[in-house]
Amino acid sequence: MRKIHVIGIGAGDPDQLTLQAVRALHDTDVFFVLDKGEVKSDLVRLRQDILEAHVPAGTYRVVRARDPERDRAADGAGYSPAVGDWRNARADVYERLIADELGADGRGAFLVWGDPSLYDSTLGILEEVLARGSVAFAYDVVPGISSVSALVARHRTGLNRVARPVQITTGRRLAEGFPEDVDDVVVMLDAHQVFRRYADQDIDIYWGAYIGTPDEILVSGPIAEAGPRIERLRAQARERKGWVMDTYLLRRRPKEPQEPKG
Amino acid sequence: MRKIHVIGIGAGDPDQLTLQAVRALHDTDVFFVLDKGEVKSDLVRLRQDILEAHVPAGTYRVVRARDPERDRAADGAGYSPAVGDWRNARADVYERLIADELGADGRGAFLVWGDPSLYDSTLGILEEVLARGSVAFAYDVVPGISSVSALVARHRTGLNRVARPVQITTGRRLAEGFPEDVDDVVVMLDAHQVFRRYADQDIDIYWGAYIGTPDEILVSGPIAEAGPRIERLRAQARERKGWVMDTYLLRRRPKEPQEPKG
Repeated sequence: MRKIHVIGIGAGDPDQLTLQAVRALHDTDVFFVLDKGEVKSDLVRLRQDILEAHVPAGTYRVVRARDPERDRAADGAGYSPAVGDWRNARADVYERLIADELGADGRGAFLVWGDPSLYDSTLGILEEVLARGSVAFAYDVVPGISSVSALVARHRTGLNRVARPVQITTGRRLAEGFPEDVDDVVVMLDAHQVFRRYADQDIDIYWGAYIGTPDEILVSGPIAEAGPRIERLRAQARERKGWVMDTYLLRRRPKEPQEPKG
Repeated sequence: MRKIHVIGIGAGDPDQLTLQAVRALHDTDVFFVLDKGEVKSDLVRLRQDILEAHVPAGTYRVVRARDPERDRAADGAGYSPAVGDWRNARADVYERLIADELGADGRGAFLVWGDPSLYDSTLGILEEVLARGSVAFAYDVVPGISSVSALVARHRTGLNRVARPVQITTGRRLAEGFPEDVDDVVVMLDAHQVFRRYADQDIDIYWGAYIGTPDEILVSGPIAEAGPRIERLRAQARERKGWVMDTYLLRRRPKEPQEPKG
């Protein structure tokens, strides 16, 4: 039977691969690389570098395919339908890759930035392909260092405070309000720097872009102070590289000294 | 100057170390191992196995110390004070280890299960030791595969659903109620299987114990069905091994078909 590895390859530092990920790379005949176009070609190159560093040349093939674009114009009317169409179109691509490029006992892999469990659609798409029933395969998941873990490691801080929760959410949802009953919030997929809306509150931001790569930028401090600096650095970096991938933790300071519960 | 590595070593599978973690192990003269007593001696042994697998014998020392016990009897009156005393007592131990066991340019390391950013006190304690000012050192953090990432990888599911948030919290807090506005909740540090309180709701549980080790147990399904099985397996395992470390994801099913927002 065909076998697929979904391999988390960390947030950008090639040394953040696990030994388990390296073993899975060695166990792979065909790597499927989905390219979103030229804009993020740095990331395609970085993935290529990871393969060359860890897998002997000549032992594998790389198959490139165009990752269908999401219809962002339709997003205004509702997030889910556009995402649904997009996932369907991606499932068509994945199905074709697995059916056409892997032999009956072939081993393929999808390399996922960060951790496949966090804001990544690969697992959902593979389940959809399996549900269609036209191509059978087994798959496993190799966890990776998420950009969230990499971010706070570089800032040398925790995600949660003692015995407190942490929420991981999107820029879109943060725009609807700061989550209830949580003081530590990690924000991903924020193209609009939504943290600026909270600059009047007693909140610290721990921000990072291109984490773990030579282009890494880290800024932390109260939003009111750090925010303008982040805006400037982010705009400059985006101008220079053509794309930016960033993540941040918002940490709301307690409103009053914490009292033991009675 | 003294240098400390805080190294995330993954959730239990020695192959879940990153290459960066292996490098940090090689860069260490003295490993500090805090032992909580005999109960979890499996974990002490597993850490020892990791060192023996990755670092040449004779290139390092291991210094053991007794990790002060938390006064759990005082927890009923309020979580924070007992934790505060405990952190102070631990800071005393860490301060002494760093001052006494590392030379002026020595390199020490603390090995942390999972990821140092998630429900681990090492970073907070090191900051406290630095703030005391009696011993100077630099430190860095090597992120690790958390038990959360390892759990969902083994269940081959994501942490979040498309464009939705995920919250990571404790058993104690889950006992106060299911978090607001979040349908995916990861629960750590739950000694009381609080998920049982939600067995009458339309919630799936993805549970795992000893994840990534030969003793690994995985159970998933609606709480009403999977819950009793988890209780039984957890009690048996605890009986057999003397301790249990488990984590779970609760996934609340949408109450109604999701409509696009108008």
